[in-house]
Amino acid sequence: MAKSLGDYITTIPDFPEKGIMFRDVTTVVQDPEGLKMAIEIMSDLCRDSEAKVIVGPEARGFIFGMPVAYNLGKGFIPIRKKGKLPRETVEETYTLEYGTATVEIHKDSIQPGEHVVIVDDLLATGGTCLANIKLVEKLGGIVDKVVVLIELKGLNGRDTLKGYKVESALAYEGI
Amino acid sequence: MAKSLGDYITTIPDFPEKGIMFRDVTTVVQDPEGLKMAIEIMSDLCRDSEAKVIVGPEARGFIFGMPVAYNLGKGFIPIRKKGKLPRETVEETYTLEYGTATVEIHKDSIQPGEHVVIVDDLLATGGTCLANIKLVEKLGGIVDKVVVLIELKGLNGRDTLKGYKVESALAYEGI
Repeated sequence: MAKSLGDYITTIPDFPEKGIMFRDVTTVVQDPEGLKMAIEIMSDLCRDSEAKVIVGPEARGFIFGMPVAYNLGKGFIPIRKKGKLPRETVEETYTLEYGTATVEIHKDSIQPGEHVVIVDDLLATGGTCLANIKLVEKLGGIVDKVVVLIELKGLNGRDTLKGYKVESALAYEGI
Repeated sequence: MAKSLGDYITTIPDFPEKGIMFRDVTTVVQDPEGLKMAIEIMSDLCRDSEAKVIVGPEARGFIFGMPVAYNLGKGFIPIRKKGKLPRETVEETYTLEYGTATVEIHKDSIQPGEHVVIVDDLLATGGTCLANIKLVEKLGGIVDKVVVLIELKGLNGRDTLKGYKVESALAYEGI
């Protein structure tokens, strides 16, 4: 029987800490068929947006966002951890389980009124994703939708992202 | 006149420190035409290898390696900074200007005798690239070639990588 996308994902119990079922996407992309399937499904989920650019956060958002952008003939805008982008940026600080994190985007990368799609590997609690959306909106951009490879439904990321369109290639019921 | 790849690169003097001419690739990929041109030139540079996988180091190697892998129907294997990969890894520590860095690759990602191409954004002194090559070789893999978007010829990375095939989409004479 043909493999499905979920067959390529490796689940690692208790990584990076006890109680977390880590969904490892490296086994998706290291297989040529898995990679192709992931990028084509995610590209299809982006097709109802006329955005000319994909925004992808460091680092796994680069893995999925860039080939989707290439496949659809769009541009790609990176969101990076603070201090990595060389030109003028805007930044957003958000709360993690322990402490905070700050992410940045180049100030000239999105024009006011410009539409974008955010592509990432995972939707968990939605906290990081909301920070990414806020960065785009600080520049006056409009987030048409968020497309992720994997959604962990038990963490209720869609509640955090209420009002935004979210689509996942693969959803797990748990956390 | 049609734009060339170099027209999309932004040069930022004195970043991240005085005396460095930083070659910013974000202005290549944020433009749909620039992105397409970069990925197609880099894909062409990979075509003489029959490797079934592209290896790309975190984080900018993800930006270029993944779409090249997608475009050529290959798989993609990430090299990451220590502590990010969830399964069993091998690691390599190398010297930076100040201190050291450690990179990792999944132990099961490359089989002995398997051929790979390493794709990254930049060849500078070649120190990081040599560490990436050593990781592949620790697993018994064979590096057919290294393909980068930009080569800074003044830093003599090819001397560090002597014995390996290196190709760049764009070469600058200076540093």
